[in-house]
Amino acid sequence: VQEKISSARYDETSRLIHIEGHYQPKLDGLVGVLCAGTGDLPVAEEAVGTLEVMGAQVERIYDVGVAGLHRLLAFRSTLRRCNVLIVVAGMEGALPSVVAGLTDAPLIAVPTSVGYGASLGGVAALLTMLNSCANGVAVVNIDNGFGAAAFAAAILRNQNDIKEETTDTHG
Amino acid sequence: VQEKISSARYDETSRLIHIEGHYQPKLDGLVGVLCAGTGDLPVAEEAVGTLEVMGAQVERIYDVGVAGLHRLLAFRSTLRRCNVLIVVAGMEGALPSVVAGLTDAPLIAVPTSVGYGASLGGVAALLTMLNSCANGVAVVNIDNGFGAAAFAAAILRNQNDIKEETTDTHG
Amino acid sequence: VQEKISSARYDETSRLIHIEGHYQPKLDGLVGVLCAGTGDLPVAEEAVGTLEVMGAQVERIYDVGVAGLHRLLAFRSTLRRCNVLIVVAGMEGALPSVVAGLTDAPLIAVPTSVGYGASLGGVAALLTMLNSCANGVAVVNIDNGFGAAAFAAAILRNQNDIKEETTDTHG
Amino acid sequence: VQEKISSARYDETSRLIHIEGHYQPKLDGLVGVLCAGTGDLPVAEEAVGTLEVMGAQVERIYDVGVAGLHRLLAFRSTLRRCNVLIVVAGMEGALPSVVAGLTDAPLIAVPTSVGYGASLGGVAALLTMLNSCANGVAVVNIDNGFGAAAFAAAILRNQNDIKEETTDTHG
Amino acid sequence: VQEKISSARYDETSRLIHIEGHYQPKLDGLVGVLCAGTGDLPVAEEAVGTLEVMGAQVERIYDVGVAGLHRLLAFRSTLRRCNVLIVVAGMEGALPSVVAGLTDAPLIAVPTSVGYGASLGGVAALLTMLNSCANGVAVVNIDNGFGAAAFAAAILRNQNDIKEETTDTHG
Amino acid sequence: VQEKISSARYDETSRLIHIEGHYQPKLDGLVGVLCAGTGDLPVAEEAVGTLEVMGAQVERIYDVGVAGLHRLLAFRSTLRRCNVLIVVAGMEGALPSVVAGLTDAPLIAVPTSVGYGASLGGVAALLTMLNSCANGVAVVNIDNGFGAAAFAAAILRNQNDIKEETTDTHG
Amino acid sequence: VQEKISSARYDETSRLIHIEGHYQPKLDGLVGVLCAGTGDLPVAEEAVGTLEVMGAQVERIYDVGVAGLHRLLAFRSTLRRCNVLIVVAGMEGALPSVVAGLTDAPLIAVPTSVGYGASLGGVAALLTMLNSCANGVAVVNIDNGFGAAAFAAAILRNQNDIKEETTDTHG
Amino acid sequence: VQEKISSARYDETSRLIHIEGHYQPKLDGLVGVLCAGTGDLPVAEEAVGTLEVMGAQVERIYDVGVAGLHRLLAFRSTLRRCNVLIVVAGMEGALPSVVAGLTDAPLIAVPTSVGYGASLGGVAALLTMLNSCANGVAVVNIDNGFGAAAFAAAILRNQNDIKEETTDTHG
Repeated sequence: VQEKISSARYDETSRLIHIEGHYQPKLDGLVGVLCAGTGDLPVAEEAVGTLEVMGAQVERIYDVGVAGLHRLLAFRSTLRRCNVLIVVAGMEGALPSVVAGLTDAPLIAVPTSVGYGASLGGVAALLTMLNSCANGVAVVNIDNGFGAAAFAAAILRNQNDIKEETTDTHG
Repeated sequence: VQEKISSARYDETSRLIHIEGHYQPKLDGLVGVLCAGTGDLPVAEEAVGTLEVMGAQVERIYDVGVAGLHRLLAFRSTLRRCNVLIVVAGMEGALPSVVAGLTDAPLIAVPTSVGYGASLGGVAALLTMLNSCANGVAVVNIDNGFGAAAFAAAILRNQNDIKEETTDTHG
Repeated sequence: VQEKISSARYDETSRLIHIEGHYQPKLDGLVGVLCAGTGDLPVAEEAVGTLEVMGAQVERIYDVGVAGLHRLLAFRSTLRRCNVLIVVAGMEGALPSVVAGLTDAPLIAVPTSVGYGASLGGVAALLTMLNSCANGVAVVNIDNGFGAAAFAAAILRNQNDIKEETTDTHG
Repeated sequence: VQEKISSARYDETSRLIHIEGHYQPKLDGLVGVLCAGTGDLPVAEEAVGTLEVMGAQVERIYDVGVAGLHRLLAFRSTLRRCNVLIVVAGMEGALPSVVAGLTDAPLIAVPTSVGYGASLGGVAALLTMLNSCANGVAVVNIDNGFGAAAFAAAILRNQNDIKEETTDTHG
Repeated sequence: VQEKISSARYDETSRLIHIEGHYQPKLDGLVGVLCAGTGDLPVAEEAVGTLEVMGAQVERIYDVGVAGLHRLLAFRSTLRRCNVLIVVAGMEGALPSVVAGLTDAPLIAVPTSVGYGASLGGVAALLTMLNSCANGVAVVNIDNGFGAAAFAAAILRNQNDIKEETTDTHG
Repeated sequence: VQEKISSARYDETSRLIHIEGHYQPKLDGLVGVLCAGTGDLPVAEEAVGTLEVMGAQVERIYDVGVAGLHRLLAFRSTLRRCNVLIVVAGMEGALPSVVAGLTDAPLIAVPTSVGYGASLGGVAALLTMLNSCANGVAVVNIDNGFGAAAFAAAILRNQNDIKEETTDTHG
Repeated sequence: VQEKISSARYDETSRLIHIEGHYQPKLDGLVGVLCAGTGDLPVAEEAVGTLEVMGAQVERIYDVGVAGLHRLLAFRSTLRRCNVLIVVAGMEGALPSVVAGLTDAPLIAVPTSVGYGASLGGVAALLTMLNSCANGVAVVNIDNGFGAAAFAAAILRNQNDIKEETTDTHG
Repeated sequence: VQEKISSARYDETSRLIHIEGHYQPKLDGLVGVLCAGTGDLPVAEEAVGTLEVMGAQVERIYDVGVAGLHRLLAFRSTLRRCNVLIVVAGMEGALPSVVAGLTDAPLIAVPTSVGYGASLGGVAALLTMLNSCANGVAVVNIDNGFGAAAFAAAILRNQNDIKEETTDTHG
């Protein structure tokens, strides 16, 4: 591909092909993308790459598994600055519930197929997230970093529409 | 309950208890709540009731199953006015995919346990929604009208925060 | 194979081997074969190829996913001309329900294994189709384009039998 | 209900309410409805009742389980007179495969929730039918006698349309 | 292996290694091994090979699928001569129920992983057999031709023990 | 029932109705029926009652769970006298594997729905038994004491047939 | 029961019957029992009651769900004093992973059947706990508070054995 | 790896890399590691290797399947010397229940993915172990030899802490 389109750039972690210079105009608001293990990085980076193409500002918060809460808690103020959160987790998929308790922004949970045995190819993490006892959590398909990013962008795009209307009115 | 708290009002369809006069301040933006069959009404009304308590404006779009597209298509302009959509569906759960193709607002899909046989208590509808090929769809637990409403309110609340910030800046 | 039987022709999309000149006599009636994504094409073409060998007339209606209703609605009159419909869909498998609402011909739904994560190898699409709230929908096994075609041909063959009887009687 | 609508008649086995005098005009062709055990009778009768309301002629072939082939084989000529077959079976759900081998009419298989233990509420019978190695078999949801009847009626209705066209042309 | 043990013989269909000259003494009684499709042959031959090593007499009854009853019915007298039956079937796994209706010998059903889609790697056939409405059917694990043969041999061995005892007493 | 047929006797544990004086002629051979917990007793007694009606001699070996091996081991010589074994177990269903290691008689395993949580209504015990690493084990449906007894009787009946033939020849 | 054994006391939450004065001698070491929601209380209290009967010292740490981390973190020093932990959780079952990160004592996770929809009767929580990415977590059956307590007591009992041996040696 | 770190040693069975000379100080107490088939050896050796690195003393008890009880019973006194047991089993996973009946030490059950057909990749063994009717059994994820070892080490480490406290007090 890179030979055909000179501006194309392949990103190995997210397995996305970026085409420079074709990005939509900037969206207001900040999207935080969190993940715990290195196994979840490709899905998290797929979300980040998609968001950047769609013109969103992204804050990466990686290596924050629930078994080491202090690392997550250190990002508390960063979390509060985010207008939307995307939380990527495989294995037991517990991270979204914990993060949702630290913020009141809408949180999109992305289960990954990372795991073995009773992880059932991501179904365990998916069920965990659907059963989250925290408010403001919704879920997309296993490994669907793209879908989470598209949903987050839809939120920001709408926020900008409302903002423009209200800026018109109040401005 | 009604005897103890005079302002309490029990709603039979949504099975919610409303306490009048305790609502949060109004949120900007409109939430559309859609459902197809009458069996899905209690979950849809649970979402509506929760949204009203949280101060959101709600537009009900009921009786719009995918097997009768003309009824849904008649609401196209109403759909476009909504800033967030909650789509409640049991059985095959196909409504969210179809609605998501008619709007670019974030859409929260709520599977219900309505159905029999291979509906597996709502799991069929849940899987349909997780596999939606449309962009901007996220899913909550089966029959979780409350969770969908809480997520929609989180979106609106954040929009209002951004709006205020940007109104400050640009205003 | 092609070396042995000179009239054999291998079709790459459907993965079928056609042997020219061995077709049954023409059947009256038209079979519409629909699918949405390119991933579903091999199964759709397997159905088309099988139908052609069995002597049926086929109308292909491809690239008509539920997330872009206008493309499907453009085929409404073609749909109404079909005596039997075969609708092939992976992922969420919502297409048969929507199509069944636009026609009253018998509709054979074919789930495909196209998808990932919670598509569970086609089980999600299969469940969607079994739970279809639309009338006149029956389902065959995952990826079973051949079975759908055989069923459609059985319908046409019987129609021709009845026709002959009634032509005899009324003719 | 019976008190309100004088022509209403409740059928205990099928659990349907018939309203006399509102039937559609007669459809050409014969539908055979088969079932094995007495436990499957309500679903079979739901199909029969629905077909009669829709104007179809029905032939009941009951008590023909696969473990007693001679009873089924005695109906071979009746089976061949049918233009569509509806085969209702719970437990292992093997009847449709066996019947499909005795006829070339399109066969609609209806799994029922009759059974216990590993019948998993009808899922075992459903899987059996979806995996049928016989040609011309399609499946509807568990216990969905109505859906099978609606599908059979759609076949007959279309046959009548074709017949009329061809009668016009050839007649 | 064949180089080391000169009497070893590898059988391609059953994937068993036979060592000639090490067979146990002959068992009284006849075991019938049935299967329908060619895909099930390796499992059937695994059973046959194991039985022969254990000293049992075996009658192969192949290519007798339920969708072509006449082929099976032609073997009725052979079936009645068998003291134990092993019935191997994939896909919908209906063959054991039908065979059990034609004989009163104990019948060991062996589901195979032959199939696709909703066959779920043999689970569909397994469930069919567990739910068999016919008497005298027991089931072993998917593809477990060896286990079925070991069970059949245990039956014959016990029969021979009883026979010896009773021959002693009555002889 | 008891009022109508004076010889009828209802057994509370097995929930069977016995009609005295209608038993088939005695079968040679002994069937051992084992179970562990009191919860499994109804299924075990259903098997015992069915066997007695069919004319088989039965040895009850109850209260022999795998967690207390000494109780089971005390019955070793009784086990060896049995020509067929029926082993009934719920929960983890491990008893058949252990018993099969102590005897070479054919063993019919009956999973029961006794248990809670991850026993999944007997599916856990069913899977355990199907995966038994011991030789000579076959399985019937969950709670199917009747089916196990019918299978055991089929073994004995066949043994008696062979015996008669061989007694004729050698006697 | 209370009428027969005067020292019997029925506890409503745990649904256990305690018989005073029959307790085993005190075990060294402290068991922490944690749970989040009020729905999980019966299972937690079943564990507590069982532990007390077995002579263990128990510390209750209730109302510490993962969506409100501050409440859990307030118990950090208590957690560190415990020699064994029992963590009871329904819904998404994320609590054990989080707690295991705050201590290095062995942690027994107990999933409960509390939840709805995709909680699948406790299977979701069970899978979450089996997939825990934290070290030192083992799992018992759904709702099995008794089993968790028995396991914790086995740990303490063994600790006391070792202690006695080593006190003998070093003392 | 071996080229970089001279003290590294790769163990083929357990697929672990050992680095000599980095072991933690010795822990008091003995861990018994049991398994039945050779297929389970890699998981058992993963547990053994992990325990050795953590400074625990290990006793291997291999080739003790439930279908050959005498081999297991020969180790009874060895079993009683163990302070913690790790029992690794695939297929039907019955070994932990049997072992738990022979000892009162805490027992960690490790299901393995060894098996075929209805073993469902280890899920059958997992369910067996979760439903164990024996006391003092807890379960880790499929093939998780490391997790079982970490849990066993946590038990021993805690025992040592208590011992030290009590040695201080009583010594």
